[in-house]
Amino acid sequence: MSLSPIITLTTDFGYSDPFAGIIKGVIIGINPDAEIIDITHGIRKFDTKQAALAIGICYKHFPRHTIHVVVADPGVGSERRPILVATEDYYFVGPDNGVFTVIYRENRSCKVLHLTAGHYFMRSRSRTFHGRDIFAPVAAWLSKSLITSKFGEAITDFVTLPLNPSLMPDNAGIEGEIIYIDHFGNAISNISTEEIETLFKNRQGRNLIIAYKGLNIPCVRFYSEAAGKGLFALINSMDYLELFVPEGDASSEFNIRTGDPVKARPA
Amino acid sequence: MSLSPIITLTTDFGYSDPFAGIIKGVIIGINPDAEIIDITHGIRKFDTKQAALAIGICYKHFPRHTIHVVVADPGVGSERRPILVATEDYYFVGPDNGVFTVIYRENRSCKVLHLTAGHYFMRSRSRTFHGRDIFAPVAAWLSKSLITSKFGEAITDFVTLPLNPSLMPDNAGIEGEIIYIDHFGNAISNISTEEIETLFKNRQGRNLIIAYKGLNIPCVRFYSEAAGKGLFALINSMDYLELFVPEGDASSEFNIRTGDPVKARPA
Amino acid sequence: MSLSPIITLTTDFGYSDPFAGIIKGVIIGINPDAEIIDITHGIRKFDTKQAALAIGICYKHFPRHTIHVVVADPGVGSERRPILVATEDYYFVGPDNGVFTVIYRENRSCKVLHLTAGHYFMRSRSRTFHGRDIFAPVAAWLSKSLITSKFGEAITDFVTLPLNPSLMPDNAGIEGEIIYIDHFGNAISNISTEEIETLFKNRQGRNLIIAYKGLNIPCVRFYSEAAGKGLFALINSMDYLELFVPEGDASSEFNIRTGDPVKARPA
Repeated sequence: MSLSPIITLTTDFGYSDPFAGIIKGVIIGINPDAEIIDITHGIRKFDTKQAALAIGICYKHFPRHTIHVVVADPGVGSERRPILVATEDYYFVGPDNGVFTVIYRENRSCKVLHLTAGHYFMRSRSRTFHGRDIFAPVAAWLSKSLITSKFGEAITDFVTLPLNPSLMPDNAGIEGEIIYIDHFGNAISNISTEEIETLFKNRQGRNLIIAYKGLNIPCVRFYSEAAGKGLFALINSMDYLELFVPEGDASSEFNIRTGDPVKARPA
Repeated sequence: MSLSPIITLTTDFGYSDPFAGIIKGVIIGINPDAEIIDITHGIRKFDTKQAALAIGICYKHFPRHTIHVVVADPGVGSERRPILVATEDYYFVGPDNGVFTVIYRENRSCKVLHLTAGHYFMRSRSRTFHGRDIFAPVAAWLSKSLITSKFGEAITDFVTLPLNPSLMPDNAGIEGEIIYIDHFGNAISNISTEEIETLFKNRQGRNLIIAYKGLNIPCVRFYSEAAGKGLFALINSMDYLELFVPEGDASSEFNIRTGDPVKARPA
Repeated sequence: MSLSPIITLTTDFGYSDPFAGIIKGVIIGINPDAEIIDITHGIRKFDTKQAALAIGICYKHFPRHTIHVVVADPGVGSERRPILVATEDYYFVGPDNGVFTVIYRENRSCKVLHLTAGHYFMRSRSRTFHGRDIFAPVAAWLSKSLITSKFGEAITDFVTLPLNPSLMPDNAGIEGEIIYIDHFGNAISNISTEEIETLFKNRQGRNLIIAYKGLNIPCVRFYSEAAGKGLFALINSMDYLELFVPEGDASSEFNIRTGDPVKARPA
């Protein structure tokens, strides 16, 4: 059984610059035993919502004690605080701008620390690359001990993003929105199995009526169950309601954008 | 000498979503000793042919016992079978849709198993993400023992894609097609050294006449041997006949597309 | 303390082909203990200048004895020499076309070897994929011993690229150019802190007047210090003078291109 601590990276750095490489060098330089895993560096620039969702559907698939570093950080260098989040099973390091919203929601008793122990940071004249100077070194030092208390002080006023759907009057249904378009053009909403189950006592997405742009969209159980080439819905592998076109690109064919409203109600 | 088992990933997941990251988490969660290597996540969406070629030119460069996971999977959730392929030296896990065509051709005695041992899969309500729920966990469990028999039953009716060129009448030449356009715009055909040697007793690609779109294209030994800026051919580093423009982009300059016919005959 | 030798990759291979995967297979096949770290495969095709800058701002963040492989290689197969560069702390393997220009400048006493010991190369008919056939195997063999002398003969006539800015008459200022546009649209010049300090005794970039396209651009200390949405300058986290738009894309908004002249003088 390997004891290598795992540090994952989820950033908006893109793939053409050496920025992610620098982060990796800093981590390995502090803890040569760390195993670094790229989740994605393809978050849209400064898109804290996409980053929140990406890490939100991802973190639980990693082994216990994994340290997740997330950087999508429009406010770098400002008063925006660098933070460390500790749940029962995982650690998260990044900016306090809402990128950990899903983590807070799914781990009500998590601890959030404002990173203030500057002796763990990289010495640098710069105030523009916290990924390199704060998040990477803190993750690397944390991976050596898993003791969080020495990195800063607990806070409770951390930032969250409005990602949840809302209930319609009389619990007639759930009103959500498209929050993520994936590489295949699938349009993922913020309506999750949790809400559907609570409201409808319905686990499979069957017998749901999905309304989008005035259309009533049929709900199937898996992609290849959809007959024809139109727009379909399913509960996807991440447990979110998703709109898709069989072997097609729903986003471009139906001009779906993040922010578009979607409603779900029982058939 | 490290004994870390190696698991490679070749997918059409792209680089902006966390899907590849989830796969990695699942693998490391089951076998923390596994070393995961990204081959590419840039296969075109659902392009089983490109996936077949990518893994086909790649797998032999890895150490013995490497496990190659390949996911380009338009039929996920349908009756399309998940499979495990074992050659003398390597293992492959992915969908039975032809992505292992080159492996079958180059390893006539390989074994193919239909993956049916569901206790090795991830428990999930989903039938839409076999990369996470079947291929990743099977690869991870396989990496612990290298015993294949427990994962399913041998099959012989696995799917292959038509990737081979054909001989012209009277063995006058080889009729192939462009099967891959790389990042540099080089256009790679399905005519390989093997066929050229068999037919022409010619190892270097010299004294070949290459016909493409009515042009006779000169054949050189390496890129910088080509004089001028037009279209040239060579036997590339993967042992396939390739059309290129010196320091240019053949695909865009000559409007080359996959599927375009190419002929090779002795000078 | 892990003793895994680290080998990094900086290439123009892109992310859609299996070329980087092949390189990794070759390295792991020769030294299974090597830890391979992707810096980027997104260098523009054949752009030796971008490659030189990417590795130049990156290499020092890695632990001592890291081996950096760099491939951006328009002249592959020609008389262009394959080389190995050894500084006090790091090793570099790649083509002799200037990709190591920053390394030479920052490590005056480095040694440069022409790679001639062919028994360390891959046996191949090809002369078109030196990344696979020369650079990867040399890096892997080097990682086993860190003894450089057996790989070739010392040379002193290695190629450098013109990356430095020049002093204006009477030391009135520094005349540089934009040499890199990053993923965020930030425009990085070749004017570094070193030159600014030497000339102006000024560490922070304050009290500098930056001239670009007839504009006088205000110089701030960090991104969020900039008020408004116009063009600003700062000394970036890599210690280079950079033009940026707060939370915007300077390159596209101001049509900035590599090669554009920039001047810096004391206020």
